[in-house]
Amino acid sequence: MMPTIEDVAKLAGLSPATISRVINNHPYVSQEKKDLVFKAMKELGYVPNSNAQRLRKQKTETIAVLIERIANPFFSQLVESMDIIANENGYKLLICQTNNDKRKELEYLNLLKTKQIDALIFASIESEWSVVENFLQYGPIVFCNDFAESASVPIIYLDQYRSAYTGTKHLIDKGYTKLSYCGGSKLTCLGRDRKNGFMSAVEEAGLNILDQWWFKDALTIEDGKQILRKISVMDNPPDAIFTGSDEVAAGMIKEAKSCGIKVPGDLAVMGFDNQPIAELMEPGITTICQPVKQMGIQTMDVMIDLLVNKRKLEHRFIQIPFHLVVREST
Amino acid sequence: MMPTIEDVAKLAGLSPATISRVINNHPYVSQEKKDLVFKAMKELGYVPNSNAQRLRKQKTETIAVLIERIANPFFSQLVESMDIIANENGYKLLICQTNNDKRKELEYLNLLKTKQIDALIFASIESEWSVVENFLQYGPIVFCNDFAESASVPIIYLDQYRSAYTGTKHLIDKGYTKLSYCGGSKLTCLGRDRKNGFMSAVEEAGLNILDQWWFKDALTIEDGKQILRKISVMDNPPDAIFTGSDEVAAGMIKEAKSCGIKVPGDLAVMGFDNQPIAELMEPGITTICQPVKQMGIQTMDVMIDLLVNKRKLEHRFIQIPFHLVVREST
Repeated sequence: MMPTIEDVAKLAGLSPATISRVINNHPYVSQEKKDLVFKAMKELGYVPNSNAQRLRKQKTETIAVLIERIANPFFSQLVESMDIIANENGYKLLICQTNNDKRKELEYLNLLKTKQIDALIFASIESEWSVVENFLQYGPIVFCNDFAESASVPIIYLDQYRSAYTGTKHLIDKGYTKLSYCGGSKLTCLGRDRKNGFMSAVEEAGLNILDQWWFKDALTIEDGKQILRKISVMDNPPDAIFTGSDEVAAGMIKEAKSCGIKVPGDLAVMGFDNQPIAELMEPGITTICQPVKQMGIQTMDVMIDLLVNKRKLEHRFIQIPFHLVVREST
Repeated sequence: MMPTIEDVAKLAGLSPATISRVINNHPYVSQEKKDLVFKAMKELGYVPNSNAQRLRKQKTETIAVLIERIANPFFSQLVESMDIIANENGYKLLICQTNNDKRKELEYLNLLKTKQIDALIFASIESEWSVVENFLQYGPIVFCNDFAESASVPIIYLDQYRSAYTGTKHLIDKGYTKLSYCGGSKLTCLGRDRKNGFMSAVEEAGLNILDQWWFKDALTIEDGKQILRKISVMDNPPDAIFTGSDEVAAGMIKEAKSCGIKVPGDLAVMGFDNQPIAELMEPGITTICQPVKQMGIQTMDVMIDLLVNKRKLEHRFIQIPFHLVVREST
């Protein structure tokens, strides 16, 4: 059995309340009593239980970050930079891979309710805002990357509409006319804005998109390979593809080599994120640069400010700049 | 102010001790009293503080995982698979990026002492075992990937000596004679075993290694590029390099193209891990496949077994198999 505060009290010949006052550094305790308490604590090997201490402070110094999956380089880099800022401010990160599962999100929201975390950051979101909203009373929530439209909290984001428009416009300016689009597995605000940006550029140019040129559930290198194989057997294939992901783009480029399809000669491939792989591939991947490090830092700065200065949550858009990186794949 | 257990007691007309018994589902509380308590809790919007509940149970259902940096794909994939198993068993992961900082490791070890976590996994380690050992009394510790030699705990590992020997032997069998070696920033058991494996193969073949062919602090793509630039201006450059990392190898291959050095013609490049990048690069990277997913799963299985069945910690080596993947870079 671990020694308890009562054991310390007995050995020191003092009341448990006095022991507690010494542990918590309250004023008005004589040095003599302090010495007795410390001596008894040392003798028994008593460790103040931090859950008890945190309970009194009503703080856990822990922030949960909800992401799709940590092995996606975008999320691992985002978490890396968030973690550095959190640590500098005495906070730890609890990582939650939701895999777009609403129940999993709710589980972590409940940690806020039961005070096992102080705050929560959504870097991907599946739940309705009307569900999330109920948890605001228990601690600050901030959105980063993905978001819910009507959320009355800070949202750190990259303008998906404009970035997709810019990328698609680049393909059109290069002379491609048969455009294909890869989306994720769900239509969140992020996915919707990105698709709308693509469509705006397409409509502006008066282009026609065949049904078979739309792909969804495209997230990984393997997904990219599969899509490329589908394209390779089409009678009327697209001549350019907006993948929304450097991983998907890399998979397509790799598989194109096996299928005898030339990138960008037969098919231009456009990524998203500007992950290290985009530069390393041959041909290098034209992509939209998301400054992921800056996004992580800014999100955590906002969160720490909310926590430390006990600020009121308010709807606020904080925009992260993006830019087009042109390489050899388009 | 959040309502307290005292507020509930007052409204229900019962003692705080009774409220506590109802919340914690103790026997011998009448249904009538239970109803009064639940009614008062609902009216006040009282939420049982889970820190308090966990304090009684002496459990946090949280496991800390210490890694170098999460943006290294090896660690993000390791954490992904650990997290899945932990979640299935009702545990959450606290991610700790140590960046090889002993103080940071100690900070997280202290979370074990202060009962803010139930258990701890070292996937990279900088501290001496004599320091870590003192924390075993507070909860289970398991090593994975890197380890301390004399650790009296389970160690899930890949035989670094044999894998480095196998990789180096492959280079020698291919006819390379001027071998170069990249190491990390420190000499842990992992680093030492790997270097010894390299040296065994080199000595067996009677090869001579020039001082300038040894590199350390090689961890990232950027490090790989820098090393390649150094090699490109050597009077007597190596003809093959064992990098210990697919990221470093990828950086070297990328930079070699800019410097007009042919891989593998002028320089063979060998990676480690078999990350996705190893397959995607052109030329593909010859590497040692670490089954990282299996390593994560097996480590968490061992940890859950320790926690659930309250097993005694014992020194135990659990070996993960490796194999050589030959591609075009050698």
